[in-house]
Amino acid sequence: MGCDFVKLAVPGVRALNPYLPGKPVEELAREQGLDASTIVKLASNENPLGAAPSSCEAVAGMMGELARYPDSSLYNLRDSLSRKLAVEPDQITFGNGSNDVLVLLAQCYLKEGCSAVFSEYAFVVYPIAVQAAGAESIVVPSKHWGHDLEAMAQAIRSDTRMVFLANPNNPTGTSFSEAELRIFLEKVPEEVIVVLDEAYFEYAVDSGHPDGILLLKEYPNLVLTRTFSKAYGLAGGRVGYSVSSVEISSVLNRLRQPFNVNNLVEAAAVAVLEDEDYLNRSRQVNQDGMAQIEAGFKSMNIDYIPSTGNFITFNAGMNGVDCYQRLLKLGVIVRPVANYGMPDHLRVSIGLEEENQRFLDALSTVKHS
Amino acid sequence: MGCDFVKLAVPGVRALNPYLPGKPVEELAREQGLDASTIVKLASNENPLGAAPSSCEAVAGMMGELARYPDSSLYNLRDSLSRKLAVEPDQITFGNGSNDVLVLLAQCYLKEGCSAVFSEYAFVVYPIAVQAAGAESIVVPSKHWGHDLEAMAQAIRSDTRMVFLANPNNPTGTSFSEAELRIFLEKVPEEVIVVLDEAYFEYAVDSGHPDGILLLKEYPNLVLTRTFSKAYGLAGGRVGYSVSSVEISSVLNRLRQPFNVNNLVEAAAVAVLEDEDYLNRSRQVNQDGMAQIEAGFKSMNIDYIPSTGNFITFNAGMNGVDCYQRLLKLGVIVRPVANYGMPDHLRVSIGLEEENQRFLDALSTVKHS
Repeated sequence: MGCDFVKLAVPGVRALNPYLPGKPVEELAREQGLDASTIVKLASNENPLGAAPSSCEAVAGMMGELARYPDSSLYNLRDSLSRKLAVEPDQITFGNGSNDVLVLLAQCYLKEGCSAVFSEYAFVVYPIAVQAAGAESIVVPSKHWGHDLEAMAQAIRSDTRMVFLANPNNPTGTSFSEAELRIFLEKVPEEVIVVLDEAYFEYAVDSGHPDGILLLKEYPNLVLTRTFSKAYGLAGGRVGYSVSSVEISSVLNRLRQPFNVNNLVEAAAVAVLEDEDYLNRSRQVNQDGMAQIEAGFKSMNIDYIPSTGNFITFNAGMNGVDCYQRLLKLGVIVRPVANYGMPDHLRVSIGLEEENQRFLDALSTVKHS
Repeated sequence: MGCDFVKLAVPGVRALNPYLPGKPVEELAREQGLDASTIVKLASNENPLGAAPSSCEAVAGMMGELARYPDSSLYNLRDSLSRKLAVEPDQITFGNGSNDVLVLLAQCYLKEGCSAVFSEYAFVVYPIAVQAAGAESIVVPSKHWGHDLEAMAQAIRSDTRMVFLANPNNPTGTSFSEAELRIFLEKVPEEVIVVLDEAYFEYAVDSGHPDGILLLKEYPNLVLTRTFSKAYGLAGGRVGYSVSSVEISSVLNRLRQPFNVNNLVEAAAVAVLEDEDYLNRSRQVNQDGMAQIEAGFKSMNIDYIPSTGNFITFNAGMNGVDCYQRLLKLGVIVRPVANYGMPDHLRVSIGLEEENQRFLDALSTVKHS
């Protein structure tokens, strides 16, 4: 008796495997009986400085409004951000993290009978969003762990409605240049939307790294996504956004849930946008930590993929999940990437100096045990 | 030249009209050049007490974690809530407000060729969610501003996959009894999901008001949705949830965005769940305010719909939007319900005593000018 409510779900959803998040510190503490304060989490590419003091003050100042619905238009954040990015306010669509905007894009433009193109080793939310919309994923083999843009352009079919690019790419940390991006965009049919995921843009300070916003006027089918979860230190608050033509934004806003960004984090985001000092410190800590971890890898003869993000992916020299489990027992959480088809690799986020050292020491212990 | 990216959107999305939120205080202040502190907002059924001090303390205590991703499983809130409601932890699915859970339900179980049934004058998110999923809405005429459950049961077709009920109903404030609900549930085919939206449950203290949770074991096709946005005073933080069979919850969780609830509000929700005093005060303020506004309406001979929620809908005796606009100029924000097919009515949320009085005075001014 009784119905099978799994079978009754729509096909795209029935076949979904949910996203696997990084293990929270509290969960590891519960499971292993460890003291949470001794655990180092370098699993989710978070800003190791913690949220900016300016953000925390802004949250405290907003507490009197916590019982009020957020401003659906996010007037204040839209105003600050549009001036900062030099775009029209209506070009911005806000989401509960850029994850939300990626899902919105798929829901608005993909359905059964359509396809979307993305790279092997690309962010796992792309296939989830495509499948949930009932569309087909076309996965293009990677080149040197990064996007093979030439092959991706060739993979576009007549039923392709969307391409996802990530620059820098998560979890491999690779990036492509403005020249490479332009060559790609010229090959994409004008009705195919190109989603350029720039979640790690603020870390990719290298002058050769393209700023997608500068290309929006030339390519009306281009949509950028960015987030406050990484360099801006607000992963817990949940706010990301896309920048696109006003037309595409108007479509996304039809489906966007009206209160998808909470009012505490809107205030926090406005504050940190003005906080140049915090962003500079975040970049410096990342640069120093990246150098520290690369040096550690070299001294251990560990093969790694050079990264332009705030994380680095390395070959564990053993089964990645085994290595991950052994690091967990030492109180260090990194991220397995077997679900990305990289069973021998692990991804580690760049932390504070002492966190990086804890990780390197633990890895050395695992390698020599 | 150039593509029409509105035409390229999927049909369900193309035809959507976005949700119209209550006007924020700051927006009215900007538009009318008013001092924000003199504006009374009774437009969005928010808790007029503001968030519980216990919630605010919890947010402050979580600030050190703001740069960390939330715990995707919401272990702490799931644990508190499951004990409070006496359900299994896995029966709960969390959302960015109950809006998010309503949308998830539609996305998981509706698609082109399916239909969903709901009542005239029911919450406007139901038709939006149904249409976005590409399914057809069957709107059943209301009976005395409330649900005509008998007609709704008869309206179920062979392609119907979902029924939405709201108890109390927003925006009319009507409710139905446990006996009426049981008669309805007996008539619904077992494979049709009945979504019982109990966003205002905590205000409907009357002993005859059904508690959907007690019916879940008997009706595996029943799904409740509730929220922390109303009596629990956390509308700005964004957290709601459904309670269902573990099977349905497992489907919803496949599509749920992993970080759809931020970590500040998770802590706030855990705190307020234990705060009996706040909930009792919220109910008392609502009961007193409801009596105050009803008395005001009676003294002005204004026709209203008796409500079991934290709001009351009344006949403006003129075009509702005109009355709304004139109240705005007096610094009082209520909610037009013309988009619900009620052009002569307005909905007012129950506020603090002085806010209710400001509203009644302004309404009297409008009526006599």
